[in-house]
Amino acid sequence: MATTQILPKGVSAREFVRALAEFGRIVGEDYVIRSDEQLLPYRKAMLPEQPEPLICSAVVIPANVEEIQGILKICNRHRIPIWPISTGRNFGYGSATPATPGQVVLELRRLNRILDVDAELGTALVEPGVTYQQLQDHLKERNIPLWLDFPAPGPLVGPVGNTLERGGGQTPYGDHFGHCCGMEVVLADGAILRTGLGGVENSNSWQCYRYGYGPYLDGIFTQSNFGIVTKLGLWLMPAPPAHRTFLVQYPEDADLAKAVDVIRPLRLDRTIGNFGVLFNAALALTSFVRKADLHDGPGAVPDARIFAAARERGITPWMYSFSLYGRPEIVEVNSRVVTAAFEQSGAVVIPDIHDPMQVNELSLETFRLLNWTEGGGLAWFAPVCPNRGADMRNQHHLAKSIMSDHGLDFMTGATCIGREIENVMPLVFNPASAEESQRADACMRRLIREFTAAGYGIYRTGTNYMDLVASLHGATNLEVNRRLKRALDPNGILAPGKSGIQI
Amino acid sequence: MATTQILPKGVSAREFVRALAEFGRIVGEDYVIRSDEQLLPYRKAMLPEQPEPLICSAVVIPANVEEIQGILKICNRHRIPIWPISTGRNFGYGSATPATPGQVVLELRRLNRILDVDAELGTALVEPGVTYQQLQDHLKERNIPLWLDFPAPGPLVGPVGNTLERGGGQTPYGDHFGHCCGMEVVLADGAILRTGLGGVENSNSWQCYRYGYGPYLDGIFTQSNFGIVTKLGLWLMPAPPAHRTFLVQYPEDADLAKAVDVIRPLRLDRTIGNFGVLFNAALALTSFVRKADLHDGPGAVPDARIFAAARERGITPWMYSFSLYGRPEIVEVNSRVVTAAFEQSGAVVIPDIHDPMQVNELSLETFRLLNWTEGGGLAWFAPVCPNRGADMRNQHHLAKSIMSDHGLDFMTGATCIGREIENVMPLVFNPASAEESQRADACMRRLIREFTAAGYGIYRTGTNYMDLVASLHGATNLEVNRRLKRALDPNGILAPGKSGIQI
Repeated sequence: MATTQILPKGVSAREFVRALAEFGRIVGEDYVIRSDEQLLPYRKAMLPEQPEPLICSAVVIPANVEEIQGILKICNRHRIPIWPISTGRNFGYGSATPATPGQVVLELRRLNRILDVDAELGTALVEPGVTYQQLQDHLKERNIPLWLDFPAPGPLVGPVGNTLERGGGQTPYGDHFGHCCGMEVVLADGAILRTGLGGVENSNSWQCYRYGYGPYLDGIFTQSNFGIVTKLGLWLMPAPPAHRTFLVQYPEDADLAKAVDVIRPLRLDRTIGNFGVLFNAALALTSFVRKADLHDGPGAVPDARIFAAARERGITPWMYSFSLYGRPEIVEVNSRVVTAAFEQSGAVVIPDIHDPMQVNELSLETFRLLNWTEGGGLAWFAPVCPNRGADMRNQHHLAKSIMSDHGLDFMTGATCIGREIENVMPLVFNPASAEESQRADACMRRLIREFTAAGYGIYRTGTNYMDLVASLHGATNLEVNRRLKRALDPNGILAPGKSGIQI
Repeated sequence: MATTQILPKGVSAREFVRALAEFGRIVGEDYVIRSDEQLLPYRKAMLPEQPEPLICSAVVIPANVEEIQGILKICNRHRIPIWPISTGRNFGYGSATPATPGQVVLELRRLNRILDVDAELGTALVEPGVTYQQLQDHLKERNIPLWLDFPAPGPLVGPVGNTLERGGGQTPYGDHFGHCCGMEVVLADGAILRTGLGGVENSNSWQCYRYGYGPYLDGIFTQSNFGIVTKLGLWLMPAPPAHRTFLVQYPEDADLAKAVDVIRPLRLDRTIGNFGVLFNAALALTSFVRKADLHDGPGAVPDARIFAAARERGITPWMYSFSLYGRPEIVEVNSRVVTAAFEQSGAVVIPDIHDPMQVNELSLETFRLLNWTEGGGLAWFAPVCPNRGADMRNQHHLAKSIMSDHGLDFMTGATCIGREIENVMPLVFNPASAEESQRADACMRRLIREFTAAGYGIYRTGTNYMDLVASLHGATNLEVNRRLKRALDPNGILAPGKSGIQI
């Protein structure tokens, strides 16, 4: 069994072997993974490969908080960097791979208890290994009428990992961080922090009230490396008495700005109950055809072919899918309002479509887009766009022209949050081709630079691009993050490089 | 003109005089206040007086961020603690008074610019001196159909101070921290941090998206002393096409739990559009009578007299006032739903009442309760209660019995947030009576101790009680706050003692 040659930065082979043996004494040898074969699934990033591959040196899999504390002691002693993951399926953002080479992945899948569900208050308390599937099964078995809100890789992943990455979904509880309540965090020195009201002895309100007393800390444990979250409180939505999902079709590529300006007021006044997805023809086509079916040239599929293939399948250049939720009478009133608004702007409105993610059904439909090319390379470019037609048009033109320069197809599945849109664009490429992978990488870096230069920010990025994105979001911001890092993890053992933060 | 003898802790009279002179060179001598007469309004806390009074030594009033940076340099050099206030009217929580004696108040009222209002996106960017009145006038003058959400002292205070204290209001945007977006924070060393997407050069999305890239920091600048917030982004609600306010009256004191169990599902499914106020007869009576009119004994007014006086005025033991907002058809549907639900549980439902705070009208009605006794002493006891009848009943009995032991009248104006209720109870007393003031103080300390011992947490507290409350919300929580404090303000010059946090 080949053992990896990759070492954590600054750690000698001898010291590393000693540390792994110490890990083994805590978690059991079966839960320390170090052979290249066994590490393979943890090293598959889907992202463009980097000159120095961002892969782990080993994986350690604790069973509980005490074992995590033991691991941290060893890491502090030997300065071993660890990269915590829950299910490790952060697809298109790096999956289970660390932000710098050689970190030890700390896999939390064995911490998989559903510690509490309060059917009356609509709350839950779960560990990082709990999946959406597991939590949904738990609710169904007990006939608890609470809905979950899933991200795109729904059935495969869990609420803790997704919430900490500030992922989103497609019900009215789509802002996952906005619907979590109370964290248990193991700090680098092993201290256990319970945020919010979790610090009150025998607290009965930990999952009821988010902010606690004094500084509200939860936000600093998202998209960061300041602690290991081992329990997370969730707010779950009472199942609505009725719901209805719509598909709106705009006939022209130039209709994008118009669509956004109709959506915005309907989102701000909460007529439309969820973010919905505003997507283009190319993304819709990935469910039906492969790129090779439409185009055999080296570059992006020409617009004319995309639109022609779309037309054949009843797909228009821009579509928006969203839902209404509530009492039947209210869904009816709002159905009339949204239909009139979209039709007035020249769209066709199709009611009663089915989109699983919008109605509490687990699905992997989003990832059909991986069929577009061979090899399953995927990197999300996820800028924030003000919820305004002119800005979306601007982002569309900017992104499309950059992608086209790099021979990639412009696709977007944008979520219309409220005052902003997360304009989430997949770069789909074949990682088996070094040339294609390099093109995707160059494209992503240019997108990040040109969007931030235009005043737009980035909501989330893959492990490859964390340093770059962090460097463009304010020097003081990064410096403050470093100061917090040094305060909470003075040896820098937790996920160095996450969101660009090192000690 | 008498000059105060009070000094910041550990600062000599000579050094203090030198520092004040240096402040004067930065802000102009007129903006450094040090005479006892002029300091009087800054020293009135409304809270029970402490053995060592929590009063400031001086006030300095900068005009802009550059002057704040200059002041901070001086404070770091001389180790002068400063207590930032915006309007300083944190009534019932300490008003403008610091958490430890002798701090210099940093009054930010001259930073009073409304920097931006985006009518389309429903956002604003304001400085700490901007009041709700000023912002409302600004919107009205320009016919911008956006509502504000005010806390109880509405017209006198501003959104920055209230949001940073995590105050609340009575429209659907009642969670003020939950509806702010982007901060500019001057750190203790003078560095300027713009949170969220404010770090992106020429950011066009600072007020659109809250979380930014990497750790979401805003929460740590609330109820804390980690920086001076000099700009705050706000989300403003589009004026609803219709709204309707209801008063629900429960006939028996024992109906409290029943009321809560009707309210909870209607709040969780968003039928009831705002928190509403669940209040008892004693609080309602303060608008009509004084305590002395009902009772001349030393203790609390006996229940029988409260209920008799209430009956005469059509007031019942428990009442809940709330509003519906939206399209007229939807308000109509929801009117039927809420009326049926409350009536079924034995309440009388009175539609179409008027409560200014619920409909974007500035008012000081809440503070009528100061008429209850002489002298205007007020301290809020503000525990968090799970939104569940049994818990509210439990808190009611516990608080009432403690208050009665200390001769104070039980009143509550609880806001029904969602999964929790902020069970906000005023202790009203005459501060001119040392005995009464001491009783109120002892009562508050006992309330805090007994509620936390029962597993309940505290949402917010006055300057007198910050150390006590912080000590009961988790040793690790306090230690983490201290670590963050040391990282961001190593000399501990910013508001030492705020929320119990010192370096």
